[in-house]
Amino acid sequence: MGFTLLNILVMAGGRGERFWPKSRIRMPKQLLDLTGRGTMIRETVWRVKALADWAQIYIITGQDYAEAIREQLPEIPSENIILEPEGRNTAPCIGLAAMVIGTKDPEGIMAVLASDHVIDDDAGFCNLLQKGIGVAETTGGIVTLGIRPNRPETGYGYIKTGQAYREVSGVYHVERFTEKPDLETACEFVSTGKYLWNSGIFIWKNRTILRLIKQYMPDLHQGLQKIRAALGTSDYDTVLKREFGQFEKISIDYGIMEKASEVYVLPADIGWDDVGSWTSLERIRTRDKAGNIINTPNVSLVDVKGCIIEASGEKLVAAVGIENLIYVETPDVVLLCPKHRVQDIKLLLEKLRMEKRERYL
Amino acid sequence: MGFTLLNILVMAGGRGERFWPKSRIRMPKQLLDLTGRGTMIRETVWRVKALADWAQIYIITGQDYAEAIREQLPEIPSENIILEPEGRNTAPCIGLAAMVIGTKDPEGIMAVLASDHVIDDDAGFCNLLQKGIGVAETTGGIVTLGIRPNRPETGYGYIKTGQAYREVSGVYHVERFTEKPDLETACEFVSTGKYLWNSGIFIWKNRTILRLIKQYMPDLHQGLQKIRAALGTSDYDTVLKREFGQFEKISIDYGIMEKASEVYVLPADIGWDDVGSWTSLERIRTRDKAGNIINTPNVSLVDVKGCIIEASGEKLVAAVGIENLIYVETPDVVLLCPKHRVQDIKLLLEKLRMEKRERYL
Repeated sequence: MGFTLLNILVMAGGRGERFWPKSRIRMPKQLLDLTGRGTMIRETVWRVKALADWAQIYIITGQDYAEAIREQLPEIPSENIILEPEGRNTAPCIGLAAMVIGTKDPEGIMAVLASDHVIDDDAGFCNLLQKGIGVAETTGGIVTLGIRPNRPETGYGYIKTGQAYREVSGVYHVERFTEKPDLETACEFVSTGKYLWNSGIFIWKNRTILRLIKQYMPDLHQGLQKIRAALGTSDYDTVLKREFGQFEKISIDYGIMEKASEVYVLPADIGWDDVGSWTSLERIRTRDKAGNIINTPNVSLVDVKGCIIEASGEKLVAAVGIENLIYVETPDVVLLCPKHRVQDIKLLLEKLRMEKRERYL
Repeated sequence: MGFTLLNILVMAGGRGERFWPKSRIRMPKQLLDLTGRGTMIRETVWRVKALADWAQIYIITGQDYAEAIREQLPEIPSENIILEPEGRNTAPCIGLAAMVIGTKDPEGIMAVLASDHVIDDDAGFCNLLQKGIGVAETTGGIVTLGIRPNRPETGYGYIKTGQAYREVSGVYHVERFTEKPDLETACEFVSTGKYLWNSGIFIWKNRTILRLIKQYMPDLHQGLQKIRAALGTSDYDTVLKREFGQFEKISIDYGIMEKASEVYVLPADIGWDDVGSWTSLERIRTRDKAGNIINTPNVSLVDVKGCIIEASGEKLVAAVGIENLIYVETPDVVLLCPKHRVQDIKLLLEKLRMEKRERYL
C-alpha cells in the first residue's frame, strides 16, 4: 500500500487540570510521566516515529508549554512547534495546524494525535495508522480510530459504525457521532457491539480537512486565510492573535465530523486510554494485592485498600484503615480526595482561583 | 487550713504513642504543645506553681526526655529531675520518687500529677489541691481527685464514691476503684452519679505512701531501701538500674489504691482531659463550622467535614469530599487515619518496629 508523505500533528495544548496538583498551569498532563515510562508527549511521538521523519512531526501547543516541549523533544525542528495564542477547542487548533502543514505539503496526509493518551500496543497502533492512511488517500474522506469499549464509560463520545467499507476489511462507514451518554445509554451502546469510543485520532489529506473547513466552517476558513497571508511576515503574530481570538470555541467533532458525509472508522484494540483522571491510573498501572497504586516504597500501611498514593517519597506516608482515597503530594501541595469525588478536583481549582492563590494552579 | 511543705511530683515518663507522628520516642506527648498555649509539661508545672517553690517541684522521667525537660523547665533544680532507668508503670515510678522526696522531707506532703493532661480551670484545680492537702494531712490517708464524667468514656478507670467525709464538705470516702468498663457499664456508672473518673492525681504524706508501699508491696519497699542506701554514692546508678529492673510492672492503682483502707476522693469539675489521642483534640480545641480542627491557614477545602488536620503549613493541604479523617504532617511523616481507627495508630508503630524503621518511631 503506497502512500505519500505522512505529517503527524500532535495536539498538546491541554491543561490536564484533572491531574492537579501534579499537573499545573506550567506542567500540564502531557508533560508528566504518569506511566513510569516517560512523559506522555515523548511516548506519543516515539510511538509513531517509524512512520515519519522529524521534519514531518508537528506539535501544536500554547506558549506556556512550548519551552518544556522543546526540551523534551529537541529532535523536532523548532518551526514545527506551532503556537496557538489561546485554547479555543480543537477546530481552530486543527484548522491552524492544517493551514500551516498544508502550505508546506499540500498533497500530503496528516494524522492527528492527542499528546496525553496511553496506547499499549504501539505496533498495532502503527499498523492501524498505516491502514487508515491508505483509506484517507484512496477515498479522500476522513478516517478515525474508534476504540472498542470494554466498559460503559460515560466520559467519552461514541461513534456508531455503519456498513463495512468494501475495499478494505476492518474499516467501516461512520453512521453517527454521539455526545457523552448517560450510564444507561452507555450500557446500551456497549451491548450492541456497534459503538466505539471516539479517540480523537484522525487521518485525512491536508487538502480534505482544509476543504471541509471551507465548506462547514467558513468563518474559520476566512480567518485562516488571513493568517496564511501573514505567514513569514512580521505581522504574523498580530494577525494570528487577532483572528484566532475570534474563532468560535468548538470541537472538530461538532464543527466537521458530524456534518461530513464521508467518514470512516477503524475499530481499534490497542490498549488505548485517555488517562482522564487520577482514578484512570488504576487502568494503566499495576495494583498491589490490596488494590492500591503506590509510587514509592516510603509507605507503611495497615488496612489500606483501593487507594492511589502518589507521593514525593520524601516523607513516610503512614496510613491505617484508609479505603479508596487519593493522596497526591507535590513539593508544595498535598491533595486528599476520595476516588468517587475525583471529578470534583476542579471545584478545588475554582476555589483556589477565587482565593487568588494562583501559585497553586 | 495550715499545712506543711508541699512537694509536687510530675510524672513525665510517658511515651504518648497515640500522638504519633508528632509524638516520637524523643518527643513524647508531654513535650508537645497540643493546646497552642505551651508544652503540656510546662502548663502542668506553671498551673500549680503558686503552691510550691521550685525546690519543691520534682519531675520523674526517663533519660531520653531529661534534657528536653531541663530545657523547657530550667527553673527546676537539676537534682529534682529524678531519672527512672526504664518505664515499669506507676508503682515503681512513684515509689522511687517518694523515697527520694521522703528522704529530703520526711514530714512533707506530696501531690502527684501527670505531665500530659489538660486542665482548664487552674484556680479551681489549685483550690482542690489545697483542700486535698488538708485532708491528707489530717487523716494520714490517700486523697485523689475524681473527675465528674460528662460522657460514658470506656478509656478511663472509675472511682465509686462512698460516704461523705464528715470533717470537710466535698470530700468522700472511696468505695471502690474499677478498671476500664465496657460501654454498657460506663453508661450505668455515669447515670448513677456516684462514679468519677480516676484522674491519677494523688495527694498523700510522704510518710503515708512509703508506709503503704512497705505494707502492700514489700518487694518494692525492699528494693527502694537498697536504692536509698546507695543515694549519693558512686554505686547509685548501678543499684538503681539493678533494683528498678526487678520491680513488678504494676500501676499504683492496682498496687496500693485498691488495697488501702483510707482513701478519699474530691469530685472535680475543672475541665480535665487526658488528651489521650488525636480525636481528643476535638474536646480541647475549637472546631470550625464544618466540625474540622485545623492548625494552619494553608488549606483549601471543599466538602470537608469533621476532620483533624495538623499540618506543617509548608504545603497547601487541598482536600475535597473528605470526612472524619485525621491528617498529621511532620517533617518526615504524613499520617492518614480515619477518626474511628485512631486507636490503631499503634498497629502502624508495631509495623514500623517490625520493619526496622526505628527512625520514624
